[in-house]
Amino acid sequence: MSKPKVFEKPIGFKDYLPNAVKKLRAIEHQVLNCMEGWGYEQIITPTMEFYDTVGAASATSDGKLFKLLNNRGTTMVLRSDMTTPIARVVSSLLKHESFPLRLSYHANVFRSIEEEAGREAEFYQTGVELVGDASAEADAEVVALAIASLKAAGVKQFKIAIGHVGFLNGVLEEALPNRAEEQAELKEMLLSRNYVGYRELLGKLELTNELRQELMDLLRLRGGEDICQRARSVSNNDTAQQAISHLCQIWDCLKAYGVCEHVLIDLTMVGDFSYYTGMTFEGYAADLGFPVVSGGRYDNLLTGFNRPAPATGFALKTTRILELLGNAEQEEDSVERLLIAYVQSGGQEALQAAQELRVQGKQVVTAKVSDAAIWEQLQASAAAGGNVVYNGKSFSSVKCYGSEGGTVR
Amino acid sequence: MSKPKVFEKPIGFKDYLPNAVKKLRAIEHQVLNCMEGWGYEQIITPTMEFYDTVGAASATSDGKLFKLLNNRGTTMVLRSDMTTPIARVVSSLLKHESFPLRLSYHANVFRSIEEEAGREAEFYQTGVELVGDASAEADAEVVALAIASLKAAGVKQFKIAIGHVGFLNGVLEEALPNRAEEQAELKEMLLSRNYVGYRELLGKLELTNELRQELMDLLRLRGGEDICQRARSVSNNDTAQQAISHLCQIWDCLKAYGVCEHVLIDLTMVGDFSYYTGMTFEGYAADLGFPVVSGGRYDNLLTGFNRPAPATGFALKTTRILELLGNAEQEEDSVERLLIAYVQSGGQEALQAAQELRVQGKQVVTAKVSDAAIWEQLQASAAAGGNVVYNGKSFSSVKCYGSEGGTVR
Repeated sequence: MSKPKVFEKPIGFKDYLPNAVKKLRAIEHQVLNCMEGWGYEQIITPTMEFYDTVGAASATSDGKLFKLLNNRGTTMVLRSDMTTPIARVVSSLLKHESFPLRLSYHANVFRSIEEEAGREAEFYQTGVELVGDASAEADAEVVALAIASLKAAGVKQFKIAIGHVGFLNGVLEEALPNRAEEQAELKEMLLSRNYVGYRELLGKLELTNELRQELMDLLRLRGGEDICQRARSVSNNDTAQQAISHLCQIWDCLKAYGVCEHVLIDLTMVGDFSYYTGMTFEGYAADLGFPVVSGGRYDNLLTGFNRPAPATGFALKTTRILELLGNAEQEEDSVERLLIAYVQSGGQEALQAAQELRVQGKQVVTAKVSDAAIWEQLQASAAAGGNVVYNGKSFSSVKCYGSEGGTVR
Repeated sequence: MSKPKVFEKPIGFKDYLPNAVKKLRAIEHQVLNCMEGWGYEQIITPTMEFYDTVGAASATSDGKLFKLLNNRGTTMVLRSDMTTPIARVVSSLLKHESFPLRLSYHANVFRSIEEEAGREAEFYQTGVELVGDASAEADAEVVALAIASLKAAGVKQFKIAIGHVGFLNGVLEEALPNRAEEQAELKEMLLSRNYVGYRELLGKLELTNELRQELMDLLRLRGGEDICQRARSVSNNDTAQQAISHLCQIWDCLKAYGVCEHVLIDLTMVGDFSYYTGMTFEGYAADLGFPVVSGGRYDNLLTGFNRPAPATGFALKTTRILELLGNAEQEEDSVERLLIAYVQSGGQEALQAAQELRVQGKQVVTAKVSDAAIWEQLQASAAAGGNVVYNGKSFSSVKCYGSEGGTVR
């Protein structure tokens, strides 16, 4: 038989050992706390959804969805994001709740990967959705909250790039009217940040020199507040103008939040999800080549769930943040862990003492000792006080119960 | 097309809305904290595992496993318990760690269900595994920890029934030597707690009257400490005697832990997992017909993963505990949630104020108000102080920023 070896797990899936779990849980806890401070309430949705509802509506390409059949032969998927399941909940269980709705989550999501890619097929996201508010203030709120969340997670250095799908759409439609395929090719280049490819493609397209230069100049529309002003003069297209105006309003709110040092405007940004309709953003941490947060506005997704509403949100890539922080200095394990060792005669007293210490909030491990030499060593350590290592685990102190000579403490 | 309706989710899967999530998270947090106090460290394993390793080794019947194929055509399963994945980790990533290992988890597990049964196909468990310790003290530790965990979860009234698979195995083998099929039928009756069926079946079996009476009397071996003593005289079979002796030692430890008021001995108990080899236990809460915790010793499972070791553990049925506590009195939402309302002119000041309050740990929702009548009402509420309802959400107070007449606070 060519069974997988017993210790193997599927490629792209990961075990998290205690040290990693402690960090992951701390990030989760701090970020959800932060989100709660902004009025966002947690929801949990199922790991599995119908392909025809949530699977098809999600922005994940079909080949990346994990699919399975239920016992009725209906196709199900493991959720590939949380935005689509939350849209389903907003349209069903929460359909009588007034807008705006502020919802948060921490969840694992699944995307089938090429084995050689070395990426994860199951990973954790911590995010929010702000549903029922079309304003620039709502977009600014989620960007400011993304920044607060990254700080809460312990990420020290990062930049958030914000853009707007309307700007590119408007400029490209003006420059290449009814040439959807060429527009799509250019956007594809920008999405993959292949700026050389973008320039080469522009060189090949049938365009006036003026328009070609205008489209080349788009690549310079990345920077601070001034970009908003400069972008206004690039195109008179209505869609593009509205996009810029919305972005300027967002920027003003972000100024009020006092977070602009973390933000830059990037008008070449194409959101990585097809359902984005307005502002999109991505956050990059120092030294990491991939985003640690991404988000944006999706005003059409809810329509597919029969409760049309504007919405905006983001997801922190929690697992990536863990990797990022995992490389940082290991923090001292500040927890005091006590060892209560005993021999038969001290059993009752030892277990009672452990119970009492745990009620006081102490971390206590009990160990019945049968080896006389080890027992003697532990008694010596108890008398001396201080750290002790037992069975490969270190304890801040040990107490010994039972023995001919009475209890040693 | 006969698509599922857009708001539907697969049968057996559940959404948890904010109120339920708050409770579920509180249970999770308190129980994991409790387990940490006993020296148990959390691990996280993948949702998906190979069928040939973890799937086949788990005690879940094949028909109840959710299976899917990966892109290489290998069969994978959604984990149906955490004990088997943890056995895999203990034998691989943790293979150099000394025993005993104390590990805890909070995880969702999956079991395919008959649609009409109304049970859950995905549910949460919070549990521990104590690996590498064959002693009665280890078994007592997990029982005492299960009791502490139920208390930490907020379950007030419950009973833990402990038994030992060795006792029944020994007694039945002595009474019905080499009649494995009949033994299995009797155990099946006990497993489903069909005591009438058990008696009827005994009536039909070819047995001496004395043996039949002895097997009938097994049903009386449920109760307190005295059961241990009475059981000793039931059978001289070695396996049965050893089982009783082990149970008596566990009972003595539980006395030392001071938790016997919650424990009863039930020698008719057959563990619901085929991998149990020794002590098994189940916990029942008042008014609930199904167990809220179950556990036991499984000394052979690790052998299949190439690191033979005795082990014992339990899983709290966290989702059931949530249902149980959900019926209890709704606790007052003690969180103070503030509303910061503003009109255009007060935007900057309002968003800054919100930031400052959040830093102080306050929960703050901001709202830009465009309707003049609502703005006037909010200003009146701000001046009057006290509760306010806005967009269907209640807030403990409101502050208003901006307006012709200056800032109202």
